[in-house]
Amino acid sequence: MAQRPPATPGDPIEAVETPALVVDLDALERNLDALARDVKAKGLRLRPHAKSHKTPEIAKLQVARGAVGVCCQKVDEAAAFVEEGIGDVLVTNEIVAPSKLLRLAQLARAARIGVLVDDARAAELLAQAAQHVGVTIDAYVEVDVGAGRCGVLPGEPAAKLATHIVGERGLRFAGLHCYHGAAQHMRSPDERRAAIASAAEKSLASKHAVERAGLQVPIVTGAGTGTWEHELASGVWNELQVGSYIFMDADYARNTAGVGEKRFDHSLFVLASVMSVPTSTRAICDAGLKAFSFDSGLPVVHGRSDLVYKKASDEHGVLEVVGPAPALGERLRVIPGHCDPTVNLYDWIVAYRGDRVEHLWPVAARGALG
Amino acid sequence: MAQRPPATPGDPIEAVETPALVVDLDALERNLDALARDVKAKGLRLRPHAKSHKTPEIAKLQVARGAVGVCCQKVDEAAAFVEEGIGDVLVTNEIVAPSKLLRLAQLARAARIGVLVDDARAAELLAQAAQHVGVTIDAYVEVDVGAGRCGVLPGEPAAKLATHIVGERGLRFAGLHCYHGAAQHMRSPDERRAAIASAAEKSLASKHAVERAGLQVPIVTGAGTGTWEHELASGVWNELQVGSYIFMDADYARNTAGVGEKRFDHSLFVLASVMSVPTSTRAICDAGLKAFSFDSGLPVVHGRSDLVYKKASDEHGVLEVVGPAPALGERLRVIPGHCDPTVNLYDWIVAYRGDRVEHLWPVAARGALG
Repeated sequence: MAQRPPATPGDPIEAVETPALVVDLDALERNLDALARDVKAKGLRLRPHAKSHKTPEIAKLQVARGAVGVCCQKVDEAAAFVEEGIGDVLVTNEIVAPSKLLRLAQLARAARIGVLVDDARAAELLAQAAQHVGVTIDAYVEVDVGAGRCGVLPGEPAAKLATHIVGERGLRFAGLHCYHGAAQHMRSPDERRAAIASAAEKSLASKHAVERAGLQVPIVTGAGTGTWEHELASGVWNELQVGSYIFMDADYARNTAGVGEKRFDHSLFVLASVMSVPTSTRAICDAGLKAFSFDSGLPVVHGRSDLVYKKASDEHGVLEVVGPAPALGERLRVIPGHCDPTVNLYDWIVAYRGDRVEHLWPVAARGALG
Repeated sequence: MAQRPPATPGDPIEAVETPALVVDLDALERNLDALARDVKAKGLRLRPHAKSHKTPEIAKLQVARGAVGVCCQKVDEAAAFVEEGIGDVLVTNEIVAPSKLLRLAQLARAARIGVLVDDARAAELLAQAAQHVGVTIDAYVEVDVGAGRCGVLPGEPAAKLATHIVGERGLRFAGLHCYHGAAQHMRSPDERRAAIASAAEKSLASKHAVERAGLQVPIVTGAGTGTWEHELASGVWNELQVGSYIFMDADYARNTAGVGEKRFDHSLFVLASVMSVPTSTRAICDAGLKAFSFDSGLPVVHGRSDLVYKKASDEHGVLEVVGPAPALGERLRVIPGHCDPTVNLYDWIVAYRGDRVEHLWPVAARGALG
């Protein structure tokens, strides 16, 4: 039921049908290179989050730049990457349904598979699936280091669960998952710095507690696009899971950068067209609630201070015109408010360089909710 | 690239993998019947909006209850319905790209096809496509009756554009599209009543202006789930486009009903599972930003005042627990904030009756943006 692709490789960009999800390859490659270079210079592991792109072709570009593998958030998402040859996938989420655990274990026949646990009973269910399939799965204890989402409390509870995991046949205790999601979009650099300092303290306390229980902690994994330079510098994390850095979205761009903090380039856009110009101050484009996710604010028309995206309905985007009216059919590159759930609306990414389409990439894990 | 279905017909509802989009058939049929009965009693045409469901199997249920056809908002969406045998489709949107107009005209070989115009140049482009393919297309003048989106101003501008359409070979002037989208979610019944009274005045003024220009106005089409009883009673509209009535979402449920106004039943849910219970007051379910659209507010856990959906990240829904903690794996029916863009996230609708899956319906027009 996938939609037909909106373009063909070799097409001029003007021939792409709108709305389409497009990626500027030059900007994408700059982002990929910049992060890989810094993480490598520090000697850390890079395991980018593939929930941002859901696209095996992009995962391959990340692995080619030294990534050890990718993160996913669902079993079916992981399956889409394993199927395309990604050999090491960490599901950064709790999985408790037996049917899903069985599918996860089956993936471990073809790839190294990790998953998070924050509950002893969940660890037992995971172990049963691994034993049933005859594989070993990397189990990471998720620690709540400030996000207030999943995870055990820092310190002794982490050690207790790690010890429990070690006692389960079919599981390998792989380390701690310490991701502070709530810090990523704090607007001021000082807030982000303080949040990660606090998360580092909780992560370290948990690591020490596990070590006191006589276990090694091979990996402490976490970090996101808003804070990764702090995790990188902390000496606590040895694996970074940054995801949105490849695309940058309007919401990340609303963060104020700290002194010396790297800014990534916008590489992901929805290509949209003006379909109606009812008045001199209002134009309507063909990309609305089904072309963008609005959970993190409005999209932004790239390079056009004369057109302000004001509101949306299902298939309409209402633009305020603050200069000469645009022409009917005029094409716009629009930066999504939030890249991850926006990508999840599309079957294809149109990858272009300059004014030419280079690739049509299937968003293979789109809609992979299971 | 569609995801595998989360269930098989005949399965018990407990076997459906989560998150899944599920429809309670008893509630759906009550909604379908109730609206069809009232519109028929008044002798009006019913052309439900298929953007809400994107599912040909549901369109067939509507046609079986007397609908003349359906509305869509994109050409590719219309194609999905024509392909499944729906013989009359109105695209309630402006289409100006020549490639899309050509595809639209090709659909008119197999079905009666209508589309909106709010610009003379757009009418010419539409006529060229119709002539090229050798078909006749119904052109409706969109009038801005209060929504502040597309559309010409009421009165003479509508008459002028209608006259222009009549002069174009390949087009049939079919009537006026007078939809007040902004009125649908006004919370108080008095506001909604006043908004539609104003829209009725503008619609009538436009109809009279067209008639003064010597043309007939066969159809005045519009209305939505929030206001349809006012359009029905007005004597101005003779075709209703109601869409969300089949499902009802949390946002429509936040409208205060007026005296005697019909309330539809919630029939659409995301079936979700609890995957983590980190504290006695917090539980996490497996349905987040990629399982619901958040443009119109938060989802609501159906029938569970003890669980309040508070916030979401990509694949997590954070629930506040105000009673005994739910069990790991416990399943919840969650009402989407906004049904239309939520449906657009799923490849399948699981239609169930009681505790048994009856149908797996492909959401054939999911992602049909072109």
